[in-house]
Order: sequence, then C-alpha cells, then structure tokens
Amino acid sequence: KNPLGMKDYKPEEMAVREKVFNLIKGVFKAHGAVAIETPVTELKATLTGKYGEDSKLIYDLADQGGEILALRYDLTVPFARFCAQHNIKNIKRYHIARVYRRDRPVMSKGRYREFYQCDIDIAGEYESMVPDAECIKIVSEILTKCELGEFKVKVNHRQILDGIFASCGVPEDLFRPICSAVDKLDKLPWEEVRKEMIQKGIAGECADLIGGYVENSGGKEIVQKLLSDEILCSNEMAVAGLKDMEKLFEYCEAMSVPPEHISFDVSLARGLDYYTGVIYEAVLVGKEVGSVAGGGRYDGLVGMFKKKNTQIPCVGISIGIERLFAIVAKNQEKEMRTTETEVFVCSVAPGKQDRKPMLLERLKIQSMLWEAGIKCDTIQRINPKILSQFQQCEAEKIPFAVVIGPDEVQNGQVKIRNIESQEETLCEREEAVGILKTMLGRLPV
Amino acid sequence: KNPLGMKDYKPEEMAVREKVFNLIKGVFKAHGAVAIETPVTELKATLTGKYGEDSKLIYDLADQGGEILALRYDLTVPFARFCAQHNIKNIKRYHIARVYRRDRPVMSKGRYREFYQCDIDIAGEYESMVPDAECIKIVSEILTKCELGEFKVKVNHRQILDGIFASCGVPEDLFRPICSAVDKLDKLPWEEVRKEMIQKGIAGECADLIGGYVENSGGKEIVQKLLSDEILCSNEMAVAGLKDMEKLFEYCEAMSVPPEHISFDVSLARGLDYYTGVIYEAVLVGKEVGSVAGGGRYDGLVGMFKKKNTQIPCVGISIGIERLFAIVAKNQEKEMRTTETEVFVCSVAPGKQDRKPMLLERLKIQSMLWEAGIKCDTIQRINPKILSQFQQCEAEKIPFAVVIGPDEVQNGQVKIRNIESQEETLCEREEAVGILKTMLGRLPV
Repeated sequence: KNPLGMKDYKPEEMAVREKVFNLIKGVFKAHGAVAIETPVTELKATLTGKYGEDSKLIYDLADQGGEILALRYDLTVPFARFCAQHNIKNIKRYHIARVYRRDRPVMSKGRYREFYQCDIDIAGEYESMVPDAECIKIVSEILTKCELGEFKVKVNHRQILDGIFASCGVPEDLFRPICSAVDKLDKLPWEEVRKEMIQKGIAGECADLIGGYVENSGGKEIVQKLLSDEILCSNEMAVAGLKDMEKLFEYCEAMSVPPEHISFDVSLARGLDYYTGVIYEAVLVGKEVGSVAGGGRYDGLVGMFKKKNTQIPCVGISIGIERLFAIVAKNQEKEMRTTETEVFVCSVAPGKQDRKPMLLERLKIQSMLWEAGIKCDTIQRINPKILSQFQQCEAEKIPFAVVIGPDEVQNGQVKIRNIESQEETLCEREEAVGILKTMLGRLPV
Repeated sequence: KNPLGMKDYKPEEMAVREKVFNLIKGVFKAHGAVAIETPVTELKATLTGKYGEDSKLIYDLADQGGEILALRYDLTVPFARFCAQHNIKNIKRYHIARVYRRDRPVMSKGRYREFYQCDIDIAGEYESMVPDAECIKIVSEILTKCELGEFKVKVNHRQILDGIFASCGVPEDLFRPICSAVDKLDKLPWEEVRKEMIQKGIAGECADLIGGYVENSGGKEIVQKLLSDEILCSNEMAVAGLKDMEKLFEYCEAMSVPPEHISFDVSLARGLDYYTGVIYEAVLVGKEVGSVAGGGRYDGLVGMFKKKNTQIPCVGISIGIERLFAIVAKNQEKEMRTTETEVFVCSVAPGKQDRKPMLLERLKIQSMLWEAGIKCDTIQRINPKILSQFQQCEAEKIPFAVVIGPDEVQNGQVKIRNIESQEETLCEREEAVGILKTMLGRLPV
C-alpha cells in the first residue's frame, strides 16, 4: 500500500509525464535557464515562518538523534536558501522536483501530498519588470504548447493591494489578514468574504470600499482607470505598483505575449507571506481545475538567510504540473507508447533440438542492433509462438521485426518485417542494420 | 545550511549529471525498458525485515498523527511492492531516483545520505539466466559508454555460496552470518575474516575449507573447475548454481559481452537478505572507488507483499551513479556548458533617449527567435556595455550574437556575429531566423 496521498506511476502515466516534462524543460532552456538541485529535506528552521498559516502542512522527519529536518514544502524557499548559502547574486534557474504537503488529499482532483513543481526563477538586479514580464511569457509559451485550450495569467501587485488597504483605512497590522480574506474571492461569494473582513476587525463600509477596487479586472485599461482614481493615488505604494503594472504590460507586448493571455485582476492576493511585488496565477478558462501556475516577486526572501540581510531581488513562477498531466492525458487521443523499442527480434517455431540455438541467434542479432544504436527487444523464452511475437509488436507499437527461422539461420539471412504493412524483406544478416536504419528514417553508419 | 550528508547541486554539476542520466536512460530505453515512479516515502512496515542489519540506517518520518512512514532505502523493495500491489506479472522497468540512508557521510568519497540510484529490473518467468545475462550486458554497455577505463562485473551465485557452506559443514542457521563475513573479504584480509567466522561459531578447519573455495576468481574456467570438485558437487544447491553460471556465460557470449568484463568471483557475497540467485557487483580496475553497480536475483521479494505469497521471479541491477558523476566530471577536460543558449541578443550603447527603445527592440528580436525555436537570451538591463555582452557570450560559450544599434533599428536590420570568428553579417531583420538556423546547422523553416 502507498502512503496516504501519494501514488505510484505506471509506464502509461510516465510516458505522458516525460512528454510534458520535456516540453517544459525545452521552454526553460530556450530562455537560457540553468538547472539546480537541492535536497528533498531542509532544516526545519529554514522553512519556519515563510508560509503563514500553511506551516501546519509541513512534513516533519523523526528526530533520530541528529538535526531537526522536514520535507520541502515548495521549491522557492530552498532556492532562496541556495542563493544565500552559495552567495549567488544573479541566476536564471529552473528546478523540476517533488514537494510535500500534509494536506487533506483529494486524489480525484489531483490534490496529492507528494507532487511535482516546475519552477523557473530569475534572481538579480535587472531593469524593473523585465524579468517579471519574462515569467508571463514563459507561462504563456508552456500553456500554449501543452494545448490546454483558452487560459489566462491573472496578474496583480502586492503594493497595489496594500495601497488599496491603506487608502480604504485598514490598519497596517490587518493588511495580511485582510489580504488572505481577499484571496478567497475566487472560491467564496463577496458576501462571505465581506463577513470575514468584518470579523477580522474592519468596518462594513471599509470592506465595501475594498470590494469596489478588487472587482476590477481586465487589460491594461484597468491600470489607467486606477491611475486616475484620486483616492487610491494619494497612496504612494499604490502608485508605485500601478507604474510597475504599466511597464509590465509594455514589456509583455514587446515579448509578443498575446494580450488575451494576461488579465490584471485586482482581487488576486495569494496567501504566502513572502511575496513583495507582482503576483501571478494562471487558470484555464471554463475549466474547474484551479490554478495551473502561480508565483510572484519575493525581494526579501534571500535576505532572510543572509547574515547581513543583503537583499537579492527575485521573481519566479511555478508550474503546477500534476494538473497539466491530468489534462494532457485526457487530450491524448491514442494511448502513448511506453517504450521506444524500434525493432523486435522474433523467431519462428523451430524443431525441438533447434530451440536453444534459435534463442542464441536472436540474442546475437539483438546485440548487433544494440551495437548499432537501434532500440530493440526480444522474448526471453526458448520457444515463443510467432503469432504472439507479432501481436506484442502491434500492442507495443514496435514498427519493425527481424524474423529468423532455421532456414535464415542456415543461410546467414534475416527477414525484416514492417509490422503495419506486413511486408517482409529477406536480406543478408550483415545488411540488416543498414536497411533498418533507412527504414527508421536514419542515415546508416 | 544543508542537512548533514545532503548537498546542493550547482549548474556546472547538473550539466554533468544530465549528460550521464541521459546516457544511462538511453541504454535502458535501447533495451526496451519502461519507466515507473514510486513515492519517496514508504510505509515503515514495507521496509522492515528486508535489509538485515542495515535497517538501522532507515530515515523515519515523524509520527504526525497518521501512518508510520520512512524514506526509501533503495529502489528494489519499492519495485517489489509495486509489482505486488498492481499485480504485475512481468515488466522490464527502469527507475532513476534518490534513496536515503542515515549512514555516516563521507562527502569527500561521495558517500552521501541522499543519493541517486539508476535501477533496471526484469520481473517475470523467462528462460533461466537470460534476464540475468541482460543485466550484465546493460552494465557493460553503460560503463563502456561512460569511458571510465577498465572495469569488471564480478558475478557469483547465492546457491553456490550456500552449497559451499553446506558442504564445508556450516549449520544452516549460520549461512547468513558466515555469508556476511565473506562479504568483507574485499575490505579485510583473510585472517580477520577467518577470525570473524570462528567468532560466529564455526571451527577453524571449516573456515579454511571455505577459504579455499572463495579464493577462486576468473572466467568460465572456474565454473568447470568447481563442477569437477567432488565434495562441492555432492551438494545439490552448488550444482544448480554452477549450472546457472554455465548458462550465464553462454548467454553473455551470445550478447557479445566482452569476456574481460565478467569475473566469476566466489568471494562476492553482498549483504542484503533478499538475494536468492545470481549476485553482481561492478568495480573499476585499479581505482579505489568501491563498487559502481550492484544487484542480483531476488525471486522471493515480490511474494512477501502478496497475500497468497505468489512468487514473481526478479533480477535487477542498480547503477551507483554518484560515483560515476565524480569520475565523469574529473574526465571532463573542458568545463561543460550550463545552458543551451544559441543566440545572445545584444545592443550597442545608444544615446540616452534611445536606451529604453533599444531594450524593447532586443526583447522583440528575442521573442521572434523563441517563436522560431531558437534558444536565446539577452541582458535584462537598459544599457549594457557591448563588450561585456560579448564577454558573456564567450564565458557561456554562446555561439552567435544578434547585434543592434540605432542604425540597425532605423533600417530594420540586424548584425549576426559569430562569437568565435568575430565575423559579422548584416541582414534584414526578417532574414535573421533563416540565416541563424543555417549557421546552427539546422534547416530553416
């Protein structure tokens, strides 16, 4: 039995996963990103105080008379620890790995306790909002290539939210609690969020003022609308955030991000404590699968691991790949191949005394094909039926078979069979590699 | 700080690792293997009683009011659990993943608490010793392709060892303890191993008899030598094991495993409890790095997870990739590239008012190249110095640059620069993709 909320992946699932991983890795590499890897565990102290109330979901290791460790909760905090520890001042890195959350698992909805994240982060001092725009470009490329249908990347800015709270009269110590109430707007109706805000200590009129702002969503015209709001623009943070958003739209345009992929959504809040600037969340339009990517700017996190509290600006995005898998797998019309086998080495049923020699001949041919870089397999039995061998080729979508019988062995020949067309070509054994390479569409050596 | 015995991997290390992983995965796929994945944790009960005295090295998770979990110790026990749980009767699968051991870490020797294993296992009823021979073939291919110098795969058979113990008069309940003493022969001199055997309860003469057998090592001639030993061959297990070894050599020959890659080594014992037949261990000749691969046949393990104790025969091999990394990295003459960036988009220093437009033009060109499937990057600053941009190309071994200045922007042109030869070609902006693809040795779209 598997641990609760964790699962095994069978070959059919792994084939889809490998395809999606390669696609995402391809986009990351096209953007010049390097790979890094960190341990699956971190010192518990590294994780403490970074996740707000989600900290209760951290998986602890037993105290076996050493350090106090926990399984990583995301890849962002380990990345910040990595930058601080190795004194890295700028890097564009990706990291594809599993993270762990002791959450209530809902396997049917793809909510697991162990799941993959694919993160790309850009650390360093750069022209303001250019790395932020690149994150949107990357998400837009990946979701387009996965062919998931319509999607949008919702974008907001922590300073705009804080500016709204300030100009609506929320006391500063209530910014985070009110922010986390706003974060629930995509799941709860306004009335319930309003109630939560009042419970958290602000007046009903104040909540309604906030409500008026956070209902804004759309394209870059929303930036101009809010920039002409006098009350909001009396707040410096709000103005700084809106100026950032103006630049973000400009750079996204220069990077050819289709405008329909971006939505400035003032209600987007995101729970984690470490975000300081732009925040993102990608959703599929018309599908109830939750967000498929999320992230934001966290300029203070690296500094928390530095003795001198040196700040390293960072922005990043995390692709929620488990949800993508589920959708890509559903879209897959035909079942994908689980192996890449190109040639199956078969033998026709021989006389009783020839059986073992026939197996040995198959092994020799297989070895000749391996030597030539051809992916091949055979049945590791002495006397398989030829029909069942051909059936295995069809079931596993192996395109070619090399077939031998006592006559072929005698004459140093083999038959090459195209499984789909059932055409067979008789040739000398030493010609087989060249012919197969041509058939496989490769240049013979 | 990292947890004790665990480390971060930087881009330079990851480049070597990716290369070695791809090489190994390529061999596994050439042999028709499928991929599977299992959780990093297992129920503690799954791991209990499989590892003999190494069980004390298992990493436990904290009891947070749920199941009792531990981090996996190897990939073999999870694979057996996988086969039993999903009722899989035959599969050739590979699994590349990290395992965990609370061992005393010796980072300088590559002994970590978190490390990768690359396993391939063949489960199912097949012609005796054919899958076993394929394991040797795979190790031989991988170690040859990694260019590690001379190596050999030591091979022995649990039934031969047990036959030796029986015919030398060791009581059956001492087979495992005496076996684990023999296992130390590669690290300790015979005298100390002999002492341990006597301490464990056998007579000195009995130990010396065993000593006479286990000093045998060599090629297939050792099989014949032992088959003509009358005392040993009075034991059925020994004869069965030796007959297996005879077949193993025959199939390895058919698969073209070079004979110098195989060594029948009667002192090879391997500690783990679950092996039942052939056991393997690959070592580099003349290098003190310990074994770089190991494995064996474990026909009883899947049955331990089955209610009806149905047996599924299994044989497998595990590549100790951390040791390979260290050696491959050392062999690497030049430092490997950490990115795959093909083109760097540069701009020459413009007048003050042109700076931002120049950045925007760079972003547009970058986006045009991404669109065309070209891996590219640019400096995300308004006004980088052209010399430092070219230096970055050289440092990161980026082969081409696209260069723009105010004139090029004005005329809708770009310069394409070959970084090594410093040759520059002026062309229309829309021609750039085609020219770059030709220069990169690809067909233009």
